[in-house]
Amino acid sequence: MGFGEIVLWELMGTAALTLLGCGVVANTVLRKSLGFQGGWLLVNMGWGMAVFIGASIAAPTGAHLNPAVTVGLLSAGKLPWGDVPAYLIGELVGAFLGAVLCWLTYKLQFDDHDEPEGTLGIFATGPTVRNLPWNVLTEVIGTFVLVLWVLTSPAAKAGEGGVPAFGNGALGYAAVMFVVIGIGNSLGGPTGYAINPARDLGPRLAYAVLPIKGKGSADWGYSWVPVVGPLVGAVLAGLLFQVLPQAA
Amino acid sequence: MGFGEIVLWELMGTAALTLLGCGVVANTVLRKSLGFQGGWLLVNMGWGMAVFIGASIAAPTGAHLNPAVTVGLLSAGKLPWGDVPAYLIGELVGAFLGAVLCWLTYKLQFDDHDEPEGTLGIFATGPTVRNLPWNVLTEVIGTFVLVLWVLTSPAAKAGEGGVPAFGNGALGYAAVMFVVIGIGNSLGGPTGYAINPARDLGPRLAYAVLPIKGKGSADWGYSWVPVVGPLVGAVLAGLLFQVLPQAA
Amino acid sequence: MGFGEIVLWELMGTAALTLLGCGVVANTVLRKSLGFQGGWLLVNMGWGMAVFIGASIAAPTGAHLNPAVTVGLLSAGKLPWGDVPAYLIGELVGAFLGAVLCWLTYKLQFDDHDEPEGTLGIFATGPTVRNLPWNVLTEVIGTFVLVLWVLTSPAAKAGEGGVPAFGNGALGYAAVMFVVIGIGNSLGGPTGYAINPARDLGPRLAYAVLPIKGKGSADWGYSWVPVVGPLVGAVLAGLLFQVLPQAA
Amino acid sequence: MGFGEIVLWELMGTAALTLLGCGVVANTVLRKSLGFQGGWLLVNMGWGMAVFIGASIAAPTGAHLNPAVTVGLLSAGKLPWGDVPAYLIGELVGAFLGAVLCWLTYKLQFDDHDEPEGTLGIFATGPTVRNLPWNVLTEVIGTFVLVLWVLTSPAAKAGEGGVPAFGNGALGYAAVMFVVIGIGNSLGGPTGYAINPARDLGPRLAYAVLPIKGKGSADWGYSWVPVVGPLVGAVLAGLLFQVLPQAA
Repeated sequence: MGFGEIVLWELMGTAALTLLGCGVVANTVLRKSLGFQGGWLLVNMGWGMAVFIGASIAAPTGAHLNPAVTVGLLSAGKLPWGDVPAYLIGELVGAFLGAVLCWLTYKLQFDDHDEPEGTLGIFATGPTVRNLPWNVLTEVIGTFVLVLWVLTSPAAKAGEGGVPAFGNGALGYAAVMFVVIGIGNSLGGPTGYAINPARDLGPRLAYAVLPIKGKGSADWGYSWVPVVGPLVGAVLAGLLFQVLPQAA
Repeated sequence: MGFGEIVLWELMGTAALTLLGCGVVANTVLRKSLGFQGGWLLVNMGWGMAVFIGASIAAPTGAHLNPAVTVGLLSAGKLPWGDVPAYLIGELVGAFLGAVLCWLTYKLQFDDHDEPEGTLGIFATGPTVRNLPWNVLTEVIGTFVLVLWVLTSPAAKAGEGGVPAFGNGALGYAAVMFVVIGIGNSLGGPTGYAINPARDLGPRLAYAVLPIKGKGSADWGYSWVPVVGPLVGAVLAGLLFQVLPQAA
Repeated sequence: MGFGEIVLWELMGTAALTLLGCGVVANTVLRKSLGFQGGWLLVNMGWGMAVFIGASIAAPTGAHLNPAVTVGLLSAGKLPWGDVPAYLIGELVGAFLGAVLCWLTYKLQFDDHDEPEGTLGIFATGPTVRNLPWNVLTEVIGTFVLVLWVLTSPAAKAGEGGVPAFGNGALGYAAVMFVVIGIGNSLGGPTGYAINPARDLGPRLAYAVLPIKGKGSADWGYSWVPVVGPLVGAVLAGLLFQVLPQAA
Repeated sequence: MGFGEIVLWELMGTAALTLLGCGVVANTVLRKSLGFQGGWLLVNMGWGMAVFIGASIAAPTGAHLNPAVTVGLLSAGKLPWGDVPAYLIGELVGAFLGAVLCWLTYKLQFDDHDEPEGTLGIFATGPTVRNLPWNVLTEVIGTFVLVLWVLTSPAAKAGEGGVPAFGNGALGYAAVMFVVIGIGNSLGGPTGYAINPARDLGPRLAYAVLPIKGKGSADWGYSWVPVVGPLVGAVLAGLLFQVLPQAA
């Protein structure tokens, strides 16, 4: 598949991911939303279904939606180097655009919110206890689980033509939805589980540039954590996969 | 398939949709219900499963249940013009009848409710912050996601004979259930996510004509928003689909 | 399949259904349980998964687990009269035994509970507003949806040998799980959705005969409602199915 | 499959199980976690998805992840004796390592927690009402349901080569996920549903040896209950399976 098509499908899928993912957080954080204070399970199901929808839309390119998945497949020897730039561009631009759409959807609720300094959490992740090396470790572990699952699960097979793809149509996307909800439920408590550099960086940039009423800092000092942690976790999973015995 | 059969299946499926969809809201709003104050996730799972059940029943006609889906398929060039009236009639009449059945199911709870002025929300959607152009935009975005997913997802393939249908039997219906729950979780906060003109208009009309104890206004001034927004979103998704490269 | 085998599989499946179904209510009602006050969605997911597990176990007989399903299939012309007694016996005896197992599981929590008069609700359904004809209507509507779905859904096909069965293995059982959760979410508010005479009658009898500490009345005056309502709903769905055009 | 490979895959799958399973409890128990006080349904969905992820990873060996499943298959005549040690070693070592990873993930939250005496519950199960014989019975019943389902469900078929495996790829793992969530929802109230000796023993040992700030007793006096109860339940299910008529 050509450069432009990879960018196109990954951009659309990742835009859907952050539109819906940031959207569910907006829904629980902004006091004039119907899902206000809806709880952690609602947030995780929101992100999981965001992945389901985004991955379905980006099916033609294997639905990475996530530089950690792209890098994990690369380090497992399952993706040609030449395709990497197109995936990364689609993921990052899409993640930014989805966050802009989220803000448009909730514009009236942003304008009416009474604690605007807390709205960064709608766009980007942050730690409950700040200790950057440990925060990195938490992101490494969560992403390691995600990418190891992508590489080994029968539900996420390599498709034809060198492009990895979730197998079994809707079933593969439901499987990755369950995995993302599960990681959020279980490993998301300390840092809000970026497990995806684009999911954090794109919306953080959107927060920085959008005219959000009363907004606070974009906390760029933390921004490298949800980039480095996921990439390290992905490479570790890819390397482990290379030394695992091949399943029949 | 003939005019009468399309009307019949879409009517039954859409009646199930609004019976169960309005039902879950009644369950959380009416104080003498076992699901009273059950929360936003309960509401969204209720609507999602309402779609699952209604779509399963309306399988023979491709389970539109929604004029936005009908119009989206039309604007994507996937539905003949001649079938449109039958779909719309089935959807609108079914949505009205389902809402009547919901009221019958919860009649005792409606009679015992202490804040009858809030019961419109059981039937029709409304904004948390009233600004009709922005409310339209929110409905455009939510419906755009729904219809783009319907058009591109491998789980929602076109069936034979020119009638689009969710593929894979139960799996396709589970997929659209996840999509509807996801849109509700993430994009439903500002306006209650009609994303379906029939789902809003039919029950609103039922509210206006049924002898509901102590009922308030049907808010007809808002009623065009959940019609125009979803139709615009559907047409935009259909037009985008026409210019997308065909996936293999 | 012979009389004894039908009894055996339906008994095991229905016992799993009421063990798990009554169990989730015990978990939310009894103050010394980890799921105490866990909410309506927990209860509905518990009953839905109880159906999933029970239906998987009773796969060889088509997993009725419910006299309303048996009668619905009969009135739709999809079950021979001769098999009906075996199904009903298995369902009723199984429902009783499952409730006994539930009590054994939660024996320590029953003994330690401080409001024993409320424990009937763990076993049998009851209305939030008592009006027996309307309560019947609510059960008619809920069961009508269930049985119409069973008869029309592609996920619930007739198996070979005249024994209807949920098709597609695990997928068919997941489908009926979603349907039961959906009916609970949306139509269970007024009466607690028996939608199954055995599910109500068997555990109610268990409540009456078990030595539950401080127990109250078994409310036999209400006990005919969750029998008559579901049977009427099932027959109406079966008759409607007979006049529907056959889907391709 | 050789000894080493069985150990490897079961170890990785069971480590994922307890990393994610203990993780969701940590998330709801530790006050500086985003899922603090997230409720019983969140905990159960966390454990269910932990099984989904772990079972997908351990697909090559049939994904036991649980000595009760191993023993149940043995007593049903579906596993050769010679494979048992490798399964048990992988399960126990994996369960220990997963708990260590959970502690690393939540290290900052453990250090900041204000009620450290309650942290055993993150690792190991315990009864709400202490009565060891009855606690055993509760674990027997829960595990009996799990293993009977594994043995009889069409979603959990025996694979080739004598190694039982969940069939249907992602669908089989989703099925067992629903079963585990269901058992937790319905039967987990009294003892926290170990239903798996390795899931309890491995993390309990980790709790005993890790330098967790302010930790309390590992309650070894209870530790035999979640070993004996599940094994008895598994053997009973295996023996029952041997006398059941074979489904077609």
